[in-house]
Amino acid sequence: MTGRLVVFEGVEGGGKTTQIQRSQQWLAESGWLEFLQTQGYVRGVVQTREPGGTSLGQELRHVLLNYAGAEPLTDRTELLLYAADRAQHVEGYLRPLLAADTLILCDRYTDSTVAYQGYGRQLDLALIDQLNHIATNGLQSDLTLWFDLPVELGLARTRQRGASDRIEQADLTFHQRVQHGFQALAQQFPQRIIPIDASQPAATVAAQVQNILHTHLSRWYAPLP
Amino acid sequence: MTGRLVVFEGVEGGGKTTQIQRSQQWLAESGWLEFLQTQGYVRGVVQTREPGGTSLGQELRHVLLNYAGAEPLTDRTELLLYAADRAQHVEGYLRPLLAADTLILCDRYTDSTVAYQGYGRQLDLALIDQLNHIATNGLQSDLTLWFDLPVELGLARTRQRGASDRIEQADLTFHQRVQHGFQALAQQFPQRIIPIDASQPAATVAAQVQNILHTHLSRWYAPLP
Repeated sequence: MTGRLVVFEGVEGGGKTTQIQRSQQWLAESGWLEFLQTQGYVRGVVQTREPGGTSLGQELRHVLLNYAGAEPLTDRTELLLYAADRAQHVEGYLRPLLAADTLILCDRYTDSTVAYQGYGRQLDLALIDQLNHIATNGLQSDLTLWFDLPVELGLARTRQRGASDRIEQADLTFHQRVQHGFQALAQQFPQRIIPIDASQPAATVAAQVQNILHTHLSRWYAPLP
Repeated sequence: MTGRLVVFEGVEGGGKTTQIQRSQQWLAESGWLEFLQTQGYVRGVVQTREPGGTSLGQELRHVLLNYAGAEPLTDRTELLLYAADRAQHVEGYLRPLLAADTLILCDRYTDSTVAYQGYGRQLDLALIDQLNHIATNGLQSDLTLWFDLPVELGLARTRQRGASDRIEQADLTFHQRVQHGFQALAQQFPQRIIPIDASQPAATVAAQVQNILHTHLSRWYAPLP
C-alpha cells in the first residue's frame, strides 16, 4: 500500500484551502505526479475535507445546521455526529483510496477535533481521543502541515473575506484556546506535525509547503530524478 | 433525585410495547402513582424509546432510512449515529426528567445495542461498551425487564403482525445470536436485569411485571399503604 494521507490543519485564515489547491497544482507541474504514476507508486492525488467529505457528511451537516428540536444538541451528541462523519470518511473513502495507492490531501482531520472541541470548547480531551480512535479505527495522517499564525491575524483575514462582521472578545478567547490546542499537539507529535509560519505571504508559504512535500515524497517513494 | 429509569428489553415479538402501556395504566389504577405523587416522591410517569426518542433521533432515523450515498454506511458509522441518538436522549431528555423526579419507562436502551450490534451483527463488544459509556455518560437503568422468549415464537408473533412475510434462515440465526446476547447480559448483570417468561399469555406477563414493579417501587420509595 503506497497511498499517503497528508492533512492541512490550523485556525481560520491560515490559508489551508489555498495551499491545498496550490499543492495539487505543484504536484502536477513539478513532475512529481507523473514520476510517481509512471513508477507505479501512486495512481492519483485527491483533495477532500472534514467534516462533509462524504454524502453522509453532507446530510449530517444539513441536520446539524437545520436542527430545530425542542432540546438543544448536547456536546456529546455533536461530538458523536462529527465522529460518525469521520468514521464514514475514513472507512468509506480514505482507506479505499489509500488501498488504491492514492495520495490524499485532506482539509482538517482529528487534530481539529482536539483543538476546536477539546481546547476551544473545553470538552474532555480523553473522551475526544477515544472518539477519534473509534472513528478512525487507528488511521493517522502520514504528515500534518499546521498553518500556524496569530489568532488576531487569522480572524482579521477571515473578516476581510466577509465571513463575519466583527470579532467579539468571546470569539477571540475561543480561537486563542484553539490555537493553544494546535501548539500543544505540535509539541506532542513533532514527528507527524510540521508547523509552517502562515503569517507570511501565500507564495512564501507555498514554497515552504512544496519543500516539505518534496522531502517527504523523496523519503516515502524515491528521489525525483 | 427520586426519578428512576425502568427499561423494557428483548427480541421482537416479546410484547415490550404492550407491557409498557399496561405498566403505565397499572401505575395509575393500582394507586401507586397517586401515592408517589402525594408523598412527593415522583412527579409523573413517562414512556419513551430508543432509537428515536428525541427530535434529533427522528432526523437521524430519516437519514439512516433514506441514505442513498455512493458508499454504503459502515458499521462504525451506524454505531456512532445510534450513539449520537442515545447521547441526545440521555442528556437532553432522560437526565432532565430524572432530575425532575420522573419515573421513566423506556423501550430499549444500551442492552439492545450490545445484543443486536454486538452479538447479532458481531461487532466488537469492547467498542460497543465504550460507545455506550460515552453516549450515556454512565447513566444505567435502575431496573431492566427482559422479555425472554424463544426466537421462533417471537418471529412467528412478529410475522402474524404482518411485519415480515417470511422468516429466512439468516434472520433466524441472527435473532438467535441476539437472544444469546440478552442471555449473556442477564447472567452478567443479575442485579439489574430481571428475566420474564414472555412466552406466557400477555395477562400473565403483565401480572409478573406488576409484581416486579411493586417490589421495586416499595424498595425505592416506600411500601404502598
